Amino acid sequence: MNRMRYYLGLDVGGTNMAAAVVDSDFKIISRATIPAGAGRSIEVITDDMANVSKAAVQNAGLQMSDIVSWGIGMPSCVNSKTNLLVHANCFGWKNVPIYDYLKGKLPLPVTIENDANCAAYGEALAGAAKGHKNVLMLTLGTGVGGGIILDGRIYAGADNMGAELGHTKLVFEGELCTCGQKGCLEAYASATALIRFYCKENGMDPGEVNAEMIFKAASAGEETACRVVSDYIDHLAAGISSFITIFRPEMIILGGGVANAGEQLLKPLRKRLEYFTFGASEIGLPPVVGAALGNDAGLIGAAFLGQR
Amino acid sequence: MNRMRYYLGLDVGGTNMAAAVVDSDFKIISRATIPAGAGRSIEVITDDMANVSKAAVQNAGLQMSDIVSWGIGMPSCVNSKTNLLVHANCFGWKNVPIYDYLKGKLPLPVTIENDANCAAYGEALAGAAKGHKNVLMLTLGTGVGGGIILDGRIYAGADNMGAELGHTKLVFEGELCTCGQKGCLEAYASATALIRFYCKENGMDPGEVNAEMIFKAASAGEETACRVVSDYIDHLAAGISSFITIFRPEMIILGGGVANAGEQLLKPLRKRLEYFTFGASEIGLPPVVGAALGNDAGLIGAAFLGQR
Repeated sequence: MNRMRYYLGLDVGGTNMAAAVVDSDFKIISRATIPAGAGRSIEVITDDMANVSKAAVQNAGLQMSDIVSWGIGMPSCVNSKTNLLVHANCFGWKNVPIYDYLKGKLPLPVTIENDANCAAYGEALAGAAKGHKNVLMLTLGTGVGGGIILDGRIYAGADNMGAELGHTKLVFEGELCTCGQKGCLEAYASATALIRFYCKENGMDPGEVNAEMIFKAASAGEETACRVVSDYIDHLAAGISSFITIFRPEMIILGGGVANAGEQLLKPLRKRLEYFTFGASEIGLPPVVGAALGNDAGLIGAAFLGQR
Repeated sequence: MNRMRYYLGLDVGGTNMAAAVVDSDFKIISRATIPAGAGRSIEVITDDMANVSKAAVQNAGLQMSDIVSWGIGMPSCVNSKTNLLVHANCFGWKNVPIYDYLKGKLPLPVTIENDANCAAYGEALAGAAKGHKNVLMLTLGTGVGGGIILDGRIYAGADNMGAELGHTKLVFEGELCTCGQKGCLEAYASATALIRFYCKENGMDPGEVNAEMIFKAASAGEETACRVVSDYIDHLAAGISSFITIFRPEMIILGGGVANAGEQLLKPLRKRLEYFTFGASEIGLPPVVGAALGNDAGLIGAAFLGQR
């Protein structure tokens, strides 16, 4: 008799939807992927969300009755007061009653959560922070996604619309952010910001540069790259310092494209956290580490949403 | 037969220690106060903490056996990892095993918590946020104290050393803060900061000015006061906006000397929160109100620490 329990996760992005079946040891045992197909109707897209998830179950050689629950990570979140999916920029959706559209599509309880929160949850369950119950994760990519795990559970604010760490203020009335506010952490600590600052200094086209190239140039001693990277790390450290001052997490995890720079980012960052963080020398600092699971973090976290 | 239960709270400040017995309706039924007597030994001061608390019980006409628990609010906090009171600047204490000193002084379970956290807890139990379970409070006084109530409980970070909202970064590498860091919210939003900015502009002696005078001057149309107050409110709003973006509390409470300005502070502050807060127009903003209980908030919150 098979005593293993299985969980179904779906990661919905602007380009693809990826589904996976995860076992109770947090191992992905099967996958399925289809294009997100933005621009189509909500009915059709939610049908595809169910279809690709079913395909993952079939690929695992399992029946739906073997699955405990279905969890979906999206670049959006459901307001717990209105039960509406507030924003899904990838599809142009706004205040969509997504649970109504999903109802009955699969015979499973379904939970939707912000994808950055899912990634943090996945890393805390099975990745870089396995064994820790109080974890903060930042995803340094096109934007800056934040995920907070408190006492082993995703924390997303009283109405589930919080934990938007990328949109806290770092520089009063500073650089314009994609959200329309000024001075957000995202406007300084995303890969996009790193590229923007670099290209502003040397006149290159941002479309031809990525974070990896800038870190490589810095490690080769290129003066502009060194200065921009050092400035980037300063701002990131100052931003993280505020989160430590509020949450005092057991561990901080960095994911996303910029985090691929590994110790070239993390080593000076830890040093600058000592400088920027309130009480660092007296009460210590949490370890800051790179994410371990890559894109699978979001899938694994999504799969276990129903178990919170 | 008296079915009421009673709780003993102690608020330890740099000048006085105030004790109170609080009933289960959150009403203070008796009080006692003695000078804090900084400069004396820890043994003697902790003796006095017990003595003034006993006096409050006697003043209520009760026995120690009528009391459920003893809670103490201090401008410090106990690291839950080391069980040491990390800092009590008012007494010059550092890393003191305070629970060992207090043991056996009263026949009651005792809990110590940061006084700003106690104030937030008191306001959530019985004051401006009564009936709300997710509340954020800022005390705008000599410094900026922060208190966070999540799901009806004090949240102070994974090791109880967090929730130091006054020492989150508002201005990257900005004004020097009392904590030695730069650009903390406290360096812009404390009464001390308001007075400092005002006196810098008009050459007055900070010792001769208080927050109330500056707000009065602004309401009388004095140009410097108007500009400084408007700037103060901008910075406070930007700081609060980050906390909303993280916690999405049901209510924000402002206490301390600056909050005595009432609607002269709150009305423009709410307006500026609309400007500064991520997603404000789409997902709304929590009400921002003045504290209701004054210094009693900390006493009531302290009294109920053991009931968390």
